[in-house]
Amino acid sequence: MRFHTEYHYFNTKTKRELINITSQVEEAVSKCSIKEGMALVSAMHITAGVIVNDHEPGLWQDIDEWVEKLAPFREDYRHHRTGETNGDAHLKSLLVHH
Amino acid sequence: MRFHTEYHYFNTKTKRELINITSQVEEAVSKCSIKEGMALVSAMHITAGVIVNDHEPGLWQDIDEWVEKLAPFREDYRHHRTGETNGDAHLKSLLVHH
Amino acid sequence: MRFHTEYHYFNTKTKRELINITSQVEEAVSKCSIKEGMALVSAMHITAGVIVNDHEPGLWQDIDEWVEKLAPFREDYRHHRTGETNGDAHLKSLLVHH
Repeated sequence: MRFHTEYHYFNTKTKRELINITSQVEEAVSKCSIKEGMALVSAMHITAGVIVNDHEPGLWQDIDEWVEKLAPFREDYRHHRTGETNGDAHLKSLLVHH
Repeated sequence: MRFHTEYHYFNTKTKRELINITSQVEEAVSKCSIKEGMALVSAMHITAGVIVNDHEPGLWQDIDEWVEKLAPFREDYRHHRTGETNGDAHLKSLLVHH
Repeated sequence: MRFHTEYHYFNTKTKRELINITSQVEEAVSKCSIKEGMALVSAMHITAGVIVNDHEPGLWQDIDEWVEKLAPFREDYRHHRTGETNGDAHLKSLLVHH
């Protein structure tokens, strides 16, 4: 049984950003020469998520607007009493998994 | 270490449909004689999802109405500029995981 | 290849409760002496879920209010015709994964 682990770091240019990591995942999978197994792709950050979906810019914008609608930015999240301002991002990340 | 992979194909009769695949998963697991391990059940389609929940028709309808409420069909999704008309299905699939 | 499985049981004091199980997961992982692998943490109940997020009480309340907003308690869920009254909990669990 083999395992192969890679860590990739991403810096977004805007507050909220969708990054296509398909090629990185494909490379990692092919690099490790595992023919049958599982690939776990996990966002190691609590305001980020990993989704599998269509690589289509219109849809990306739809998703962006949709998460804002369901988990809007608001001043008055209780989480903001800590000094942070990203309560909405924590909720949005729940919508786009781990 | 053993792996066992199966592909199952489902054709829905209606635009949106909930299919109970519990018995297929159970069979696949028992067939491969793995006593301790992980079963990954993944919807290999970006407008489909896999959930674990109660096998109760009333709940299924509640879930169906709920995803329509949170991710309603709309004409004006940007994704529709591609000619597709299933923007809502892409969003709904986010609600019901991968 | 090794596997290590643990079952933990939790009884909530209130109808809806967020329990921090980070230390239980850490202990389980360190106990089994697996250096590289996957940890599957799964809520074995259809009105419960497992999320990874900030251990901050304000955020926990934000999440609690948020799931109530997106999947509110209602008398008239079809699921309630079975005599149950937790239709909202089934929907809420979809928001917080498996």
